Amino acid sequence: MQHPSRTPMDKVNLKAKLRLFEEQWSPKIVGELNGQYVKLAKLEGEFDWHSHEHEDELFLVVEGRIVIHLRDREVPLEAGELFIVPRGVEHKPVAEREASVLLFEPTSTLNTGDARSERTVEALEWI
Amino acid sequence: MQHPSRTPMDKVNLKAKLRLFEEQWSPKIVGELNGQYVKLAKLEGEFDWHSHEHEDELFLVVEGRIVIHLRDREVPLEAGELFIVPRGVEHKPVAEREASVLLFEPTSTLNTGDARSERTVEALEWI
Repeated sequence: MQHPSRTPMDKVNLKAKLRLFEEQWSPKIVGELNGQYVKLAKLEGEFDWHSHEHEDELFLVVEGRIVIHLRDREVPLEAGELFIVPRGVEHKPVAEREASVLLFEPTSTLNTGDARSERTVEALEWI
Repeated sequence: MQHPSRTPMDKVNLKAKLRLFEEQWSPKIVGELNGQYVKLAKLEGEFDWHSHEHEDELFLVVEGRIVIHLRDREVPLEAGELFIVPRGVEHKPVAEREASVLLFEPTSTLNTGDARSERTVEALEWI
């Protein structure tokens, strides 16, 4: 479902939006600005290693705790903490228990980056 | 002070960063991605009416409560709520008591938009 407007001008309550879906590893769009989407996603378990050749990606934890695995270290993130994965850097998000994150990335970004797989979400949904 | 690196790859704890400064209406940069800055700002009182001709601006409340005044309505925002002001739309942020916000906007954005004044912050600081 496309949002009825590309500039909805409604405020977004992050926790209320998170109650609207249960699906994990399937980011939902909650806003758009300057060619970037603001997305919310629920994570649990391990995602695939991937990178985005041309796009930096921001993770801000809203609920719970995740660990961004990089090839040379791990970055644990609690609620209220953010991390920017620069373009080209391989990463793998891991959440031991379900966690919710806000993502900020260009409208062109695929969730699996350059590693297209069965986990790639092709058609993003507005909520 | 410029941040030593444009892609610092350190995580950002929003509340810890907020403890590093007291100045109000003077956004500090905490991250950069895809030509956009992530900034933190403390607001109290009323700002000037302004708009940004070419830039959409995101406000996410981290602590406290603000009201984004638009010419036709007011948008109250609590912690955990965000609002995107589309380019060209006049707005005036108001905070009855001190509040802290995360801003997301292009690296070219001036805080006062097209209404340059003594409140315009010309040189943004990384924290």
